[in-house]
Amino acid sequence: MTELRVAVVGAGLMGADHIIRIGQRIVGAHVSAIVEPDESRAKAALENAPSATWYPNVEAAISEGAMDAVLIATPGQFHETVLLPALGAGLPILCEKPLTTDTQSSLSIVEAEVKGGKQLIQVGFMRRFDQGYMDLRELIASGDSGELLGLHCAHRNPAVPASYHNDMLIFDSVVHEIDIVRFLTDSPVNSVEVKHMKRNTLSPKDLNEPILVLLRTESGVLATVEMNVSVQFGYQVRTEAVFQKGIAEIGRSAGMNRSFDGLLSTPEHMSFKTRFAAAYDHQIQRWVNAASRGTIDGPSAWDGYLAAAAVDAGVKALNSGASETVSYAAKPAFYN
Amino acid sequence: MTELRVAVVGAGLMGADHIIRIGQRIVGAHVSAIVEPDESRAKAALENAPSATWYPNVEAAISEGAMDAVLIATPGQFHETVLLPALGAGLPILCEKPLTTDTQSSLSIVEAEVKGGKQLIQVGFMRRFDQGYMDLRELIASGDSGELLGLHCAHRNPAVPASYHNDMLIFDSVVHEIDIVRFLTDSPVNSVEVKHMKRNTLSPKDLNEPILVLLRTESGVLATVEMNVSVQFGYQVRTEAVFQKGIAEIGRSAGMNRSFDGLLSTPEHMSFKTRFAAAYDHQIQRWVNAASRGTIDGPSAWDGYLAAAAVDAGVKALNSGASETVSYAAKPAFYN
Amino acid sequence: MTELRVAVVGAGLMGADHIIRIGQRIVGAHVSAIVEPDESRAKAALENAPSATWYPNVEAAISEGAMDAVLIATPGQFHETVLLPALGAGLPILCEKPLTTDTQSSLSIVEAEVKGGKQLIQVGFMRRFDQGYMDLRELIASGDSGELLGLHCAHRNPAVPASYHNDMLIFDSVVHEIDIVRFLTDSPVNSVEVKHMKRNTLSPKDLNEPILVLLRTESGVLATVEMNVSVQFGYQVRTEAVFQKGIAEIGRSAGMNRSFDGLLSTPEHMSFKTRFAAAYDHQIQRWVNAASRGTIDGPSAWDGYLAAAAVDAGVKALNSGASETVSYAAKPAFYN
Amino acid sequence: MTELRVAVVGAGLMGADHIIRIGQRIVGAHVSAIVEPDESRAKAALENAPSATWYPNVEAAISEGAMDAVLIATPGQFHETVLLPALGAGLPILCEKPLTTDTQSSLSIVEAEVKGGKQLIQVGFMRRFDQGYMDLRELIASGDSGELLGLHCAHRNPAVPASYHNDMLIFDSVVHEIDIVRFLTDSPVNSVEVKHMKRNTLSPKDLNEPILVLLRTESGVLATVEMNVSVQFGYQVRTEAVFQKGIAEIGRSAGMNRSFDGLLSTPEHMSFKTRFAAAYDHQIQRWVNAASRGTIDGPSAWDGYLAAAAVDAGVKALNSGASETVSYAAKPAFYN
Repeated sequence: MTELRVAVVGAGLMGADHIIRIGQRIVGAHVSAIVEPDESRAKAALENAPSATWYPNVEAAISEGAMDAVLIATPGQFHETVLLPALGAGLPILCEKPLTTDTQSSLSIVEAEVKGGKQLIQVGFMRRFDQGYMDLRELIASGDSGELLGLHCAHRNPAVPASYHNDMLIFDSVVHEIDIVRFLTDSPVNSVEVKHMKRNTLSPKDLNEPILVLLRTESGVLATVEMNVSVQFGYQVRTEAVFQKGIAEIGRSAGMNRSFDGLLSTPEHMSFKTRFAAAYDHQIQRWVNAASRGTIDGPSAWDGYLAAAAVDAGVKALNSGASETVSYAAKPAFYN
Repeated sequence: MTELRVAVVGAGLMGADHIIRIGQRIVGAHVSAIVEPDESRAKAALENAPSATWYPNVEAAISEGAMDAVLIATPGQFHETVLLPALGAGLPILCEKPLTTDTQSSLSIVEAEVKGGKQLIQVGFMRRFDQGYMDLRELIASGDSGELLGLHCAHRNPAVPASYHNDMLIFDSVVHEIDIVRFLTDSPVNSVEVKHMKRNTLSPKDLNEPILVLLRTESGVLATVEMNVSVQFGYQVRTEAVFQKGIAEIGRSAGMNRSFDGLLSTPEHMSFKTRFAAAYDHQIQRWVNAASRGTIDGPSAWDGYLAAAAVDAGVKALNSGASETVSYAAKPAFYN
Repeated sequence: MTELRVAVVGAGLMGADHIIRIGQRIVGAHVSAIVEPDESRAKAALENAPSATWYPNVEAAISEGAMDAVLIATPGQFHETVLLPALGAGLPILCEKPLTTDTQSSLSIVEAEVKGGKQLIQVGFMRRFDQGYMDLRELIASGDSGELLGLHCAHRNPAVPASYHNDMLIFDSVVHEIDIVRFLTDSPVNSVEVKHMKRNTLSPKDLNEPILVLLRTESGVLATVEMNVSVQFGYQVRTEAVFQKGIAEIGRSAGMNRSFDGLLSTPEHMSFKTRFAAAYDHQIQRWVNAASRGTIDGPSAWDGYLAAAAVDAGVKALNSGASETVSYAAKPAFYN
Repeated sequence: MTELRVAVVGAGLMGADHIIRIGQRIVGAHVSAIVEPDESRAKAALENAPSATWYPNVEAAISEGAMDAVLIATPGQFHETVLLPALGAGLPILCEKPLTTDTQSSLSIVEAEVKGGKQLIQVGFMRRFDQGYMDLRELIASGDSGELLGLHCAHRNPAVPASYHNDMLIFDSVVHEIDIVRFLTDSPVNSVEVKHMKRNTLSPKDLNEPILVLLRTESGVLATVEMNVSVQFGYQVRTEAVFQKGIAEIGRSAGMNRSFDGLLSTPEHMSFKTRFAAAYDHQIQRWVNAASRGTIDGPSAWDGYLAAAAVDAGVKALNSGASETVSYAAKPAFYN
C-alpha cells in the first residue's frame, strides 16, 4: 500500500491550505511536487511539504514523473493550461472550481476527457462534502417530507478583498449554489434571473449588492439565493428546503452557548475556512482514496461544464435584469 | 369611567372569536350589540355576550344608539355597507382586513372619512401588534444593524378550506406581508412580481402554489414572500431582515423542548389563532383604549387603501407573470 | 354582570404593579380600595386607580364594605394581620407568597380558614400560571415520556438589593421551586439538603451563594435547584425534567434572533417582571374570575402551609449542611 | 518521514474501531500488529489492517520488534499486564481508560513509569479532545465570564448491555466526568457523594439509577453529574458551567432542523460513537503525532491514577450514601 504522490499546482492561499491539509490530515497521500512559477511562494510552501520537489510548471513535473495525481489550485484562468497536459499524462486530477472560466473552454476540457476514454477530473465543489448538504440531499431523495418544491439559500460573507468585482458575485460565489442546487435536486439549472436588494453602502464602490438570484431547475424547483458579500457580522451559508409536507434547514450556528450581558449567544463563523473545514478534508480524503484506485468520487468535468454554462447565463442575467435561459450541449454518454 | 359599548358586526368565525375576546380578555369594553343577519349564528354568539342585543343590520343598531364603537368582522365584500353608515354616525371603527375588496371602493371610504373630518377607522392588520414585528421595526428604526436592505418572509399554512381560490393567495394572505413590509420599512410597495415554486400536488386542484412574491418598496428594499398554503406540517410566519451589518429574524418556534425518540423537538403552531393570539388581544385592547378617547391606535383607512392598491397589482402579477407597478392616489394631508 | 371590587393591601412595588395590572389588563375587576399606612405611597398608587378610596388599615376598609375581595401585597410579616380580618369578613383573598413567614402561623391561618368552612385564600405562587410549567405538568401527567424521575431547576438573578440576606435564599427564592416541584409532581417535599457552590465574590458580602438545593418528594423524585442571586448576565428560570424515556425542558430564551458582530444572539430576561409578566396576568385574571364566583383557582392556604413547612426545613438545612426532614401536620379533609 | 507502526492490543469493539480509524483517518501511522488471544477476532480485525501481523500476546510482538507504539484497547482488567512489558520496552502507549481497575495498581504503573524516567503513557480520556470541552476550558481559563463556581453535567445513555452492573455507573461512566471536571478546573476532585434519583423501572433489574453525583474539587467548585443509562431517547453528554457573571453550555444538539408533523426537530445522537467521533479521531491523531516524537499529548498516567483514586471514593459513595473523601498519593515531581 504505497501513498498517492500528489502534485499541488499553485501555492497561493488555497494551494498552501491544501498542502497543509494533505500533510497533516489526509491518509494515504503526500505532496510530492509543488508546481508554482513564483519561487518565494514555492519555498514557503515547501516548508510544509518536506518530501516535495519544486517545479516551475506542470510539464516539468510530468516529464520527471513527479506525481501520481494532480491537485489544481491556481487562479481559474490558468486551469486549462494545467488540465490539458495532466489529462494527456493520464493523471487523476482534482481541479478547484471553476473548471475553466468560460463555457467554451469547459466544454473543450470535457471533450478532451471523453477522448481520453477515462474519467480523470473531479471538480472542487466542496459543499457536496458538507454534512448538512449530504443530509438534506438524503432527505430529498427519501421522499419522507414529500416532493421538494423550492429552496431558499443564503450565502453571506463579512467582506471581500478589493480585487473582487461585480461579475464575481455570480462566477465566484453563486457558482457554489448553482452546483449545489443541482446536487440537491439532481436536475440542472435551466434559467437564471437576478434582482437587486437595496445596495449596501458598506460594499466596495463598484459592487452593486446584495443580490437575489432566482434559479429554476429543469425539474421545476425554484431556488432563491441571497448573495451578500459585505454583511459584516460573519460568514453564513444556509439552505432552507420547502417540501410538500414540511421544511428542512441546514447551516444554523452551533457550538458553545453563552449567556452573558443580557444575551444568549452562539458564535457565528467568520470565514469559509472554519464553516467548511470538515467538507474540505472530507473532499480531499475521498478524492485521494478514489485517485489511488484510478477513479473519481465527486463532481465530474461534466458537472464543471454545467456550472460554467449556468454561470454564463447568470452573469448575463446580472447585467440584463431579465430571466436568462441556460443552453447546454448534449450530455456525452461517457458521463452516464 | 364607563365601558366602551362595542357592536360586533358579523358573528362568523372571526366575529365569534372577537366576542369571546372582548368578553374575557379586554378591559374597558363589552359587547353591547351583535349585528348578524343569520339568526342562529346570532343566537350562538349571544351566549358569549349576555348583555348584548341582536340586530339584523347595522342601521338598526345605530338608530337605537346601541353602541359606542363598531368592530366589523363580516366577509370583506360587506365591509363597505357597514363602514359608510358607521362613519356617518361618527362611530370609531375597527375593520378587519381588507378595508374593502377593491382599490376604488377603498379610496371612496378614505374620501368619506376625510370629508367627515376625523379619523375613525382602524384596519385589522393585527401583525403590527405582534411582539416580533414590533421588535424588528424598532431595530430597523434604531439603525443599530445599519440600513435595512432586504426582507425574506415565509407565510406557511398547513392547509386551506375548499372555498380558498387562487387570487386569495394575494388578497387574503400576502396582503398581510404587503402591510407589514410597509410597517417595517415605512415605505409603500411600489411593484409586485410573482414566481411560482414547483406546485404542491397536495394543494386543492385549482391552486397553483406555493408562490414566491417579490415586493419592492419605494425606498428600494426588496422583500421576498414565500406564500404557501398546503405545507401540512404547521402554521409558520417568519421574517428575516438583511441589514448592512447583520441579520435579524423573528417567528422561530419557542416553547417546551422535548428529547424523545432520537429527536430534540419544539412544537410548531398549527393555526394563526395560537401564533397571533397575543397580537389579536393586544390589537383589540389598544383599539378599545383609543376608541374610548375617540381616536385610533393602529393602521388607518389610508393604510387599508394602500394595501388594496398593492393587492390589485399583486393579483395582476400573479396572473401576468410580469412585474406590476402599483399606482397610488395622492395622500390626503388629513393622514399626515 | 358587576365588576369585582378589589382592595389592594400594600402599595409598595408589588402592590403598585398589581394596581396597574388590574386597571389595565384584568377583565371584570377594578381596584376599589388601597390599604396602605404610608400616605404618600397611597397617593401615588391612587393615580393608577381613580375610582379607589384610600384606607390606612384593612379593618377600616372592611367596616365600610369597600371591597368584594382582597389582594395582599404587603411584606410577608404583615400577611397574618390582614388575612385574619379578611377571613373573618368572608372575603376572597389572593395573598402574595409567603402565606405567612413561619410554619406555625401558616397552620393557624389554615385552621382559621377551615373553621370558616369555605376556601377563601389563594396563595400567589404565580409560576403555576406560567405556560412552560403548565405544559410540563401536563406532559408529566400524560405519562407520554414515562414516569418522572428527577428535576433540574435553575433560578438565577442578576443581582439582589442590599436588604437581601442569606436565609432569603430559601424563604424568598427557593420557596418558588418548593411549590413548583410539588405542583409538577403532585407530591410534597419530604427532605431538603443544601450544598454550596463556590462562593461568588460579586455577591453582597453576607451572602454565601450560589447554592445547590436538593429536594426529595414523597414520591421519590429528586429535584436539584441551583439558586443563584448574583449571576449578573440576566434573570433565568429554567427546569429540565428527567423521565424514563426522555427529557423535557422549559424556560429557554426566545424572541428576536440577531446575527451581529460574530454572534447569533437572543435576548435574555433581566427581571422576573418580564419573564413572568404573562403568568402574573394569568394568575390575577383567573383569581378574579374565581373570586367573582366565590371560589379560588390556584394554590390554596394548605399549599402555602406546605411551602412554609418545607422552607423551615430548608433554612435549617442551609445552616446545618445536613439533610433535613420536613414535618407536616395532617391534611384537613377540607382541602381534599 | 516514516510512519509510526502501531500495535493495537485487543480487537474487541473498541480495538476494531481504532484499527479502522488508524487505517482510514489517521495520518502518519499504520497498524503493524494486532495483539489478540482470540484467533477469530484477530482474523476479522486483520481485514482492516492488511499490513499487520497477528500476535497472541504483547510479549511476542515486543520481542519481534513489531511496533513503534502501543494502543491498549483490552478490557480494563488486562491493562496492567500490557502496560508493564510495553513500558519495559520503552514504547509510547495510548491506554484506553481506565489506566487500571484499582487505585493501587494505577499507582504502581505511575511508579514504574517514573522509574523508567520518561513519560510514555497517555490515557484515553477522549473528551478532552472534544471541541466543546476545549472551548469551555478556554473560556474558564480566559476569565471572561469571571470565576467558575459550579458545573452541571448530564451523561445520558439510551440503554446499556446486560453485562453492565451497578458500580460501573461510577468506574465506567462517571469516570469521564471525574477526569473532565479536573480538566476544566485544573483541580482534582476531593470528595464524592451520590444521591439516587427515582429509579427508572426500564433499567436492568440490578441497576439503581439514574443517580446524581456531587463532585467537589480542591478549588471549591461543585460539580453535579446526572448519570443516566436507561433514558431511551438518545445519547447526550452536556455540561453547563456557572460563572460569576454568566453561564456557558456545551453539548446541545446540532444538525439539520426539520419542521414536520407539528414539530421543529433536530436529531439527537444515539451513541458515543457519533457524539464523540471527532474527539476520538483528534485524540488518536495528536497521540500519533506526539508518539512519533517520543512524547505524549494528552492525559498522563498520573491523570489516570487521579481518576482511579476518585473512582474508588465514588464507588464507596455510591454504596454508602455518604460524602467520601478522596485520598491521593503525593504527586511525583516527574509529572510537573
